[in-house]
Formats: sequence, structure tokens, C-alpha cells
Amino acid sequence: MAKDKGPRRPRAQTPKGFRDYFGSEVSARRAMLDRIAAVYHRYGFDALETSAVETVEALGKFLPDVDRPNDGVFAWEEEGDWLALRYDLTAPLARVAAQYRNDLPSPYRRYAMGPVWRNEKPGPGRFRQFYQCDADTVGAASVAADAEICAMLADALEAVGIERGDYVIRVNNRKVLNGVMEVAGILDPADPSKFEAERGIVLRAIDKLDRLGVEGVRALLGEGRKDESGDFTKGAGLGAAQTDVVMKFVDANRAIEASLGALASEAIEKGLPYSRYTRAMYSFDEKTSKPLSVDDEAEVYRSFATVNYLREIVSDSKIGAEGVAELEEIANLLAAQGYGPDRIIIDPSVVRGLGYYTGPVFEAELTFEITDEKGRPRQFGSVAGGGRYDDLVKRFTGQAVPATGVSIGVDRLLAALAAKGRLEESAQGPVVVTVMDRARMAEYMAMVGELRAAGIRAEMYLGNPKNFGNQLKYADKRESPIAVIQGEEEAARGVVQVKDLILGAKIAAQATVEEWKSQPAQIEVPRSGLVSAVREILGRQG
Amino acid sequence: MAKDKGPRRPRAQTPKGFRDYFGSEVSARRAMLDRIAAVYHRYGFDALETSAVETVEALGKFLPDVDRPNDGVFAWEEEGDWLALRYDLTAPLARVAAQYRNDLPSPYRRYAMGPVWRNEKPGPGRFRQFYQCDADTVGAASVAADAEICAMLADALEAVGIERGDYVIRVNNRKVLNGVMEVAGILDPADPSKFEAERGIVLRAIDKLDRLGVEGVRALLGEGRKDESGDFTKGAGLGAAQTDVVMKFVDANRAIEASLGALASEAIEKGLPYSRYTRAMYSFDEKTSKPLSVDDEAEVYRSFATVNYLREIVSDSKIGAEGVAELEEIANLLAAQGYGPDRIIIDPSVVRGLGYYTGPVFEAELTFEITDEKGRPRQFGSVAGGGRYDDLVKRFTGQAVPATGVSIGVDRLLAALAAKGRLEESAQGPVVVTVMDRARMAEYMAMVGELRAAGIRAEMYLGNPKNFGNQLKYADKRESPIAVIQGEEEAARGVVQVKDLILGAKIAAQATVEEWKSQPAQIEVPRSGLVSAVREILGRQG
Repeated sequence: MAKDKGPRRPRAQTPKGFRDYFGSEVSARRAMLDRIAAVYHRYGFDALETSAVETVEALGKFLPDVDRPNDGVFAWEEEGDWLALRYDLTAPLARVAAQYRNDLPSPYRRYAMGPVWRNEKPGPGRFRQFYQCDADTVGAASVAADAEICAMLADALEAVGIERGDYVIRVNNRKVLNGVMEVAGILDPADPSKFEAERGIVLRAIDKLDRLGVEGVRALLGEGRKDESGDFTKGAGLGAAQTDVVMKFVDANRAIEASLGALASEAIEKGLPYSRYTRAMYSFDEKTSKPLSVDDEAEVYRSFATVNYLREIVSDSKIGAEGVAELEEIANLLAAQGYGPDRIIIDPSVVRGLGYYTGPVFEAELTFEITDEKGRPRQFGSVAGGGRYDDLVKRFTGQAVPATGVSIGVDRLLAALAAKGRLEESAQGPVVVTVMDRARMAEYMAMVGELRAAGIRAEMYLGNPKNFGNQLKYADKRESPIAVIQGEEEAARGVVQVKDLILGAKIAAQATVEEWKSQPAQIEVPRSGLVSAVREILGRQG
Repeated sequence: MAKDKGPRRPRAQTPKGFRDYFGSEVSARRAMLDRIAAVYHRYGFDALETSAVETVEALGKFLPDVDRPNDGVFAWEEEGDWLALRYDLTAPLARVAAQYRNDLPSPYRRYAMGPVWRNEKPGPGRFRQFYQCDADTVGAASVAADAEICAMLADALEAVGIERGDYVIRVNNRKVLNGVMEVAGILDPADPSKFEAERGIVLRAIDKLDRLGVEGVRALLGEGRKDESGDFTKGAGLGAAQTDVVMKFVDANRAIEASLGALASEAIEKGLPYSRYTRAMYSFDEKTSKPLSVDDEAEVYRSFATVNYLREIVSDSKIGAEGVAELEEIANLLAAQGYGPDRIIIDPSVVRGLGYYTGPVFEAELTFEITDEKGRPRQFGSVAGGGRYDDLVKRFTGQAVPATGVSIGVDRLLAALAAKGRLEESAQGPVVVTVMDRARMAEYMAMVGELRAAGIRAEMYLGNPKNFGNQLKYADKRESPIAVIQGEEEAARGVVQVKDLILGAKIAAQATVEEWKSQPAQIEVPRSGLVSAVREILGRQG
């Protein structure tokens, strides 16, 4: 007779691409988000929490870089409606801005923090549920809104523990690139559909500057490029003059550095004051980009040299000039609040998101070095990005509503804080009151109660107390700083043993109860002195 | 020729049964959960955040009160696997306890806070996504774990602003009810499947005590009951002696009150000290339930009178006696920590969850009165419940793991705090710096920057500044406490106008700019005195 095995047991397993977060992983993230929320709140942004579930219709196909509708989302049918988990926090914002357009203040500043879901192939460090932390202003056409978000981002990074100098926020503008394209003859404002393919190749080529260098990009703008393996990538087919225009833009940073470097040399030669930013602290003639005067107080920064350089390239394009004027205004507004180039710079090399955003784009980069998985030093890199986008609300209402915003990569920023040793230290384990004598549980519980009432994280061992070794193993697993012990004999004498587990950690692993109790890391105190003894040891442990 | 209307616009609408949370709704909940988390952390509980998505297989059919598998959840198929949104935080805990059983400390104390989803018919105040806030101990068979959770729940309620005296935590035990059933002859420990129908009717009848009164319940235990409309509900068919046993349990509170009342009268007669709890502060003979001595210091509470009363009823049942012993131990452990009957009581009238839990059950009730939607005063009622449950992890591993926990109804508790006026006041609107002169945006932005740097919530008006009335309407919608105004003329004189909007609210609604600027609620200060003037007015507004 076959043995009845009963029903198969369910697998205790997270679905593929999902994960659990334990203890300090949760509380460190919470602490970081609370700090960011406090900054956003101070800037006048209001919290918004939308539901995780939206109609597929409301979500639309706004996921950047994904063209196919509803691809990449978790969706299901419910009584004839298709529902889906939100894939970002921007699409729900658009829905909210449309749904409550008569009730919300305009402009509407809001922040949102929470999980989003992507139905994508999971990979190492790539999960199907992850946190986003966004701040957006809807209904403000002025680039003052963009400047404000850049300043707020800088404040938020500092609030969580990224020090000034360890980050830089780079600002660029899609309109400047459009202007460059127009001057190069591959964008016709009268017929934007012309040269679309060429512009696509140019955009992709610019994005490869870091990897291919100036000559590699130049080749891709022209006929094409053969890589080391001999493979040929077809280029945009631009002529030499066209390529020169685009390359002047691509190569902007190097050119500006060189010209500022020359000014700095001049300053040194003439014995003028030299500081970290001296080379940027000149006033420039807007037309010639030449210095007008040397003035430490002028607060005209590197960013303005960049603005002038860009203005020269796109002077023949209306949209380009508009983009440069916007960059200049952003730089002005930020300078007025004291956000100098040590925090925020105008940087034409920012291309991430240029295909998605319609005006200013920003990116926060952490500039300190970490060691990658192969042991090589590299810059930590980007932790946040954003920009101005149109037509978000228009989908719903038919009316264009200008909007701009930023999204912080929560996991990236947490990793950065971990790398810098700046994670909240709420990770400390509890003081463990051990159970030596089962009949006296109430007394152990009273000890725990006193410790907790004094604000000390503490617990009584709740497992089977018979095996004292298990209690010690438990305390070890909990990373407990202190164990409290009171057997019958101690109780009779009115004392407790207080054991510094951090001091005694190594010995405890092998010792017997009696050996363990005799270690110097352990002190005997009167029962009434329990709280103060624990507090003293915790203080000593730091 | 038909006019091309273009594609239909999507509806800007939350899916049915879902809602959005704005501003202070989000931040007040966050503040409340942060306070609860701090208490849980102090008790040694670790945060756990599981993913929103689980396999249907792992979730199982553990939703209380729903018998059909997977009913009530949002589920969909993904590459051959059925996935679903979690419907509570307990099922994911069971999965985690099984999946990481070799790595987690044992016992494992964890708390979890987050949204859960129910695919149920939405109704007024009933949404398909809502928050839960749970704390559970997995792997501790000792009722010390239950006692700890009751104490922690009391601390959590006080931490969020529910004052002592405004809540009570009631503790009961499923095993006592089982003992009552056994003594009444409708539970045979040798064959638990017998009398299942009768026990179901008895459980439902007991649950109706509040509504039907003692006689109504008695009728339902016997032949049945005819209600006012003449409809007849068939009863459990118990005989008179059986009914008496169950009724002694159902009517326990009244009987205990009466006996304690008699003792209190005696105390008053004899001139013994009388206080709110005097009537409970006697020592009782365990066998006779008679007072042994009158002793204010004895700290033997009302709960012990209850324990003795229950012990008498179920003395002939092993499981019943076990339940009573557990209740007594819980009362002892709590008393040792000073959690008296002003916070936690043993109460046999708690039946909620008795069908689901296997040992101790607890319920936190708020005892202050609110006015219901019909204007009648009523007690606020339950905000949290929990108890001990088995077989949660057994589904996965085959090994029984004892567990106990509590779940706070987040929305209920928030409503209670709102009723008590104890919500966090992070709701204050920002100071609004108005834009009188478009050319001087950078200067307005600098003012905002100064205010923010001083920790004051502030913003510059980012809409079209042309219509100043719109700026005032905006400030009104934002519930701004203060507006800052600086036109060309003020700028020339180096001053700013600071307007107390709370003082000037009524007038501002109708007045013109000039009238508005002349109101007494408005003061002129030097530009350099902006921050201190704003701070002073904010202080005055409280």
C-alpha cells in the first residue's frame, strides 16, 4: 500500500526578482527617507501617497526607454478593468494632478516616497520592487522651479550625510542640444519630424563620450566607426562643418577648463588671490567670454563661463538661445541663494534623460571614490536625476501643464551612505536578560521593564531556557551589547550579574556557563543598580 | 467631413476602492508609525519589510473569516506562477520564518508596517488598500511572549498620544472557552470533530452578548430565539445544565463586578482605604475566591478575581485549567512590570478572534466617547487585536512553531488621534514669498533660501506672477501663515512687508492689493530683519 504523503507543502520562497529587507536595512532606509522628507517639507512640498494599484489606462506608456505600451508592468484584469502596479511615482502624479486639478494648489509641489514595481528580468542587485523618492512641481513654467529643485536636492543630500564636496549637481538643458542640432542642420523647427534618425544617432554618440573619447564620438557623427574587434558602426553621416558644431558642444567642458585654466595662470602671474574657485571667479564679457575684471566678490562662477561658451555655439538658434538663457537664469537664482559651483554646476556633458525631458535636466553625482567589485577605484556616480517634462497631464485633460521634478535612487543613496559609514546606527542589538530560573520569570520581566522604561533596548530570553548555551547563542545572533544574569544564588543575595558581551565576545563563544560568568567583562551589582550599570557599560561601548 | 477627435483621453481616476492620501494625511500617519516603531524597537523587535508580491502558494488561505482559497486577494499569472498582493502581514511573516529559519534568531521578534490589499467589495471608509502595523514573536511557547506584547501595545498607544485611562487592553484565552465547552459537554478532547456545529452556534451567540443581552444569548444556547420581527433563529439545543455552564462564562464580568462590589462595600463599612482599584486590591484564596486579607500593597488585581472565577468553571477540564493558568501567569508577569488593571485586564468577554487564535487573545479598546454619525455618543472601541496562533510555519516546514502577535488598525488609531486632537501638527502651510517684480526673482529666491536655512517652511510663488490676487489665493489654499511682499519701491528702500495671514485672513479674501497691504496685520521691516520678523509672527501664532 502506498504511503499517504499528504498534500505537497508550499515553497517558502519570495517570487523571482523580489526580496525581503531585515532590521537595520528597513530602519536605515526609513531614517534616510524621514530626513529627506523633512527637507522637502521645509521647501513647501506636500506629501502624496497614491495607491500601489492604478488602471492601466491611467498609467499609460510613460516608462522612459520603453516604447511598448504596458510592457514592463505587472497587470491583471479585474471585473473588465485592467489594473497594474505603478512602475514609477510620476505617472500617478500626472493622474492626481488631472483628477484633483480643481482642488490642488497651483503650482502644486509634492513629494512621494514608496515602492514601485517593474516586470523586468531581474539581475544581480536588480529587483522587481524597489523604492523611489520623488519631488515634483506641477504647474510652474518658470525655471525658478527647476532651480529650487536643484537647491533642495543639494540640501537633501547633505541632510542624509553626504558632505559638501562629496557631491555635485550638474545641470544641462535639452533646448541647448536642440539648438546645437538646429545650427548643425539636423533639426528643422518648422518640421521636427525631419532628420529624426540622424538626431537619434547623434544622441547615442554623445552618450558614449566617456567610453569612446572625442575622436570616437567624432567618427560616429560622420561616416561611422570601426571598433577594436573590427565591427563597424554606421555614423550619422554629418559633414565636417556639421560635425564641428556638435563637437564644440560635446567638447565644451574641456574647452572651458582650458580657458579658465589660462585665466587662473594669469591670476597667479599677476599675484592676484588664488583659491579653489579663483579660476571661475571672474566677470566675463557676455559677447566675447573674455574677463572684464578680476573680482573675488563678483560671485560669477564657472557656470557662467559655460553659459557664455554655449551661447556662442547656438546663437543662430531660437530654441538654443532660449535654453542658454534658462541655464543662465538657473545659475543666477542659485547664486543668489549661495549655491555655488561647489554644489551645483552648469554642465553640458549631462546627457542622461535628454531624450525624455524637454527643458532643464539635472543629475546628482557623488564624487568620492569607492572600490568596485574588481578592487578598482571608481567614482561612486549618479544617485539622482530629473528635469522638466511636458504633456504629462495633457494626456488626461488636453491642457498642457508644465512640470519639473527629481527622483532620488533610494538604494543607490543608501549604498553611498553605507560606503561612507553614515548609516543610522539604530542597528544595535538589545540587552538580553537571561532566564536562569524558570520560576522567576516575573522578576526577569520586571528587569526588562525597568530597562525599557529607561529608554534602553532590552528583552527577556523567550525561548526554552533549559539550555543556557542557547541563550548565549541567541544573544550573539542578536548582537546584544550586554547580558543580564541572575540565578537563584544571586537572587538570594539581591544582586545581578551584568556581562559586557562586546568585551567578552571572543571568550563567550567557547566557554562554559561557569567560565563565562567568571570573565572580567562581567560585574556584579545590586539589583537596584541594574539600570545604571547597564547604562554605564553602554556608554563605555560608545 | 467628420471632425477627427483623436484618440479618447484616459480617465484620471483611481481604481474602484482605492484612494490617495495628501499632505498631513501622509505625514501624520508616518509620524504615528515612527513613534510605534520606536517602542517596538525598544522592546527588541526588529523591522521586517517583505515585498508586496508573494506567490499564491506561499500566501495560502490564511485570511481570517474567509474559507475559500485565494478569495479576497488580487492575483495574476506570471510565466506560469500565480502571484498575488499580500492581504496581511502575517502570511508573509510565516513565509519568512520558514524561508530563513536557519538564519533568524529564535525566538524571532519582528515588526512590520505597510499596506496590504484586499480584493473585496469596497464601501464607505472601506478601501482595498490599507495599512497594517504588526508585531509578532515567532518561536516562543511561553506566555511571557504574550504578556510582553500586551505591555508593548500599552506603551505604543501611550507613545502616540492615547493617555492612560483612555484605553484598556483586554486579555482572554481560547483554551478557557474550550474548557467551558468541554465542561458543558460539547467538546470531546478525544474527538475534536464532534459537536462542531453546536460549538459554532455557541461562539456566534457569545459574540452577540452586547446586542442581545444575557437572556438573548441564553435563548440561542437552548432551543433558539425569536427576534422582534418574529424571525426565529435556531439555537444550539443545549440542555439547562449545559446552558448554565456556558452562561456562567458569558456572564463572568457582571458576576465578578458584583462580588468585587460587595468587597468594596465591606471595605468602606470597615473604614479601610478606598481608591479606584480598592475593590480589586484584595488577596484571594485561590480555591474559594474569598478574600484572605485586605492589603493595599498586595497588588493583586481585579484580574486575579477573574482568574479565580474562571478556574472554578473549568476545573474539570484539562485544557480549560491550562488556559486559566496561562491567564494567571500573564497577569503575574504584567503586574511585576507595573501593568495594572488601569491598562491591561483579564476579560472573559473578549471573543473577537477566538475562532482564529489558539491560546491567549488580546484586544485594545479606546474607552473615551466620540459622537457617531447620528450624533449619539458611543465608545470609540477597538483599535488593535491579536493573539497566539499555531501551524503558521508548519504549512511550509511540517514543524509546529508557536507564535503570538498583535495588529494595530492604523486607520482606526489615526481616527482616534484626530478625535482626541493629538495628530502631529506638521500640517502647517509654508511662508509664501510673493513675486511683485519679475525681474527680481533671484532676490525673492534669496529670501526663501534664508527662511529655509533658518528651518522655516517657506516657498516663493512659482505660478505666473502677473495677477497678484492669484498669489494671495494660492497662499490661502496653502494655508500659509505669512506672506512676504517686496515691490520695487520697498526694494529701493531696503525693506520688506511681512503679512500675518492668519490675523488678516478674513479681510484678505475681498481686499485689493493696496487695501491688503495697508492692513494692520502687516508690518514693514528692514530686509535684513526678515527672518526674525517671520519667526516672531510664527511664535505669536503659536
